[in-house]
Amino acid sequence: MVDSELLVDGPAVILVEPQLGENIGTAARAMANFGLRDLRIVNPRDGWPNEHARRAASRADHVFDRIRLFQTVEEAVADLGYLVATTARSRELAKTVRGPASAAGIMRGHMVGGVRAGILFGRERIGLTNEEISLADEIVTLPIDPQFASLNIAQAVLILAYEWRRSGLESEESGLRFTTPNDSRPATKQELIGLFEHLEGALDAVTFFRPAEKRPVVVQTLRAMLQKAQFTEADIRTLRGVVAALENRPTRPRKRADGTETTSREAED
Amino acid sequence: MVDSELLVDGPAVILVEPQLGENIGTAARAMANFGLRDLRIVNPRDGWPNEHARRAASRADHVFDRIRLFQTVEEAVADLGYLVATTARSRELAKTVRGPASAAGIMRGHMVGGVRAGILFGRERIGLTNEEISLADEIVTLPIDPQFASLNIAQAVLILAYEWRRSGLESEESGLRFTTPNDSRPATKQELIGLFEHLEGALDAVTFFRPAEKRPVVVQTLRAMLQKAQFTEADIRTLRGVVAALENRPTRPRKRADGTETTSREAED
Repeated sequence: MVDSELLVDGPAVILVEPQLGENIGTAARAMANFGLRDLRIVNPRDGWPNEHARRAASRADHVFDRIRLFQTVEEAVADLGYLVATTARSRELAKTVRGPASAAGIMRGHMVGGVRAGILFGRERIGLTNEEISLADEIVTLPIDPQFASLNIAQAVLILAYEWRRSGLESEESGLRFTTPNDSRPATKQELIGLFEHLEGALDAVTFFRPAEKRPVVVQTLRAMLQKAQFTEADIRTLRGVVAALENRPTRPRKRADGTETTSREAED
Repeated sequence: MVDSELLVDGPAVILVEPQLGENIGTAARAMANFGLRDLRIVNPRDGWPNEHARRAASRADHVFDRIRLFQTVEEAVADLGYLVATTARSRELAKTVRGPASAAGIMRGHMVGGVRAGILFGRERIGLTNEEISLADEIVTLPIDPQFASLNIAQAVLILAYEWRRSGLESEESGLRFTTPNDSRPATKQELIGLFEHLEGALDAVTFFRPAEKRPVVVQTLRAMLQKAQFTEADIRTLRGVVAALENRPTRPRKRADGTETTSREAED
């Protein structure tokens, strides 16, 4: 179900001088949700370890306990072969600017080829300095509404982590199972036609089709409409139960006036 | 860079019984970042208005101040023509399961065609009930790591909002149009629920649901089954005619024994 490339290690996430411990913990959780594990922090304002960070990380211990602390951005990215820097708005820098999906695809290509990749995230208010950005190969910018740009670090990490994971799925839906309840198979056309004829018979009995000349058109409309649902075999049985109940008024325990006719129709299928 | 179709209104976000005010506010902020504005909340645990929510919404006033409160999910989605339900894991429900990008593309297609779309988010711990999910046309599931699934509501809202915005930036997706034959628009949830209740009333009258304890399960099965067809408004009218004809046996020219009851039910809608 999941593409084998999901087994590739994910990119490193590097938080530069995060101010709030809570954001570090929430970033760890965001990463864990999408299978990333390598979190690095550079010179956090409130020192390290940080209890606010641990609490916000909640159950993401396998990410949190591996967090590595660095004094400078240069040290934090030293082992990486491809680095993207996240910036909120485009700057006057001679670098390719990508969206998150495109950046995730490039990173996966590198990691599959054995090159370690990483994503650089800036400080809460002022982001990354131009000097820090210059360490990156490319820039990734999120398509936020310019009139309301208020994404925090953990949210930006979440979206990049999501795109990383998505880039490893053959198609977006390949990680998802398509199930029908009770393993019911799609109805055969014969079963579907059985339902149609049952319903149309019940409608004939109440003179639904008036004037009679219009019957073929209305029948065709009804059939097209119901066909859209792609009923399963179990669905057909349920719906025939519904039609039978409605045409069997009054309720089943009592004898019906026209019972014979209906029984013979039901017996046909 | 920005496609003109970004000007299309975004889908509604519906939070069902959110427990923490903070999540409501953070969801509003997440939406604002990606240009969504229509936030609806159903029966929030701590009542409304909620100061925690307002504080968490920060500067997203233009979303927060327009939040609408509803008592039931049915009322909250009544005006929508296409609804996706977010669920954490696949369930035994006969609905198409999509990833966020695919769902966003479908929603954009609908909204460009003038059909209002919405996304349903469940409660913090227990998500959505099967009955609530049955109101949706399709299911959207995020590709989270099954070994660490700990996304909160606001994070799920963030990713769907991000994908909504992204769907407006990519030319290959913005070209999609969803049209229905005969210019009939998709039925609103209100119209659909009207059909369901009409049919269930008719089935009650013939004691279809036996034993009575099983009624909720059978009702849900029926609704899920019929929902698959994505009926148009014209379809709903036709089907209500079918149900009315069948419950009106014997044929319309003759007086019915229980005519009063049926008339009153029909008058309700």
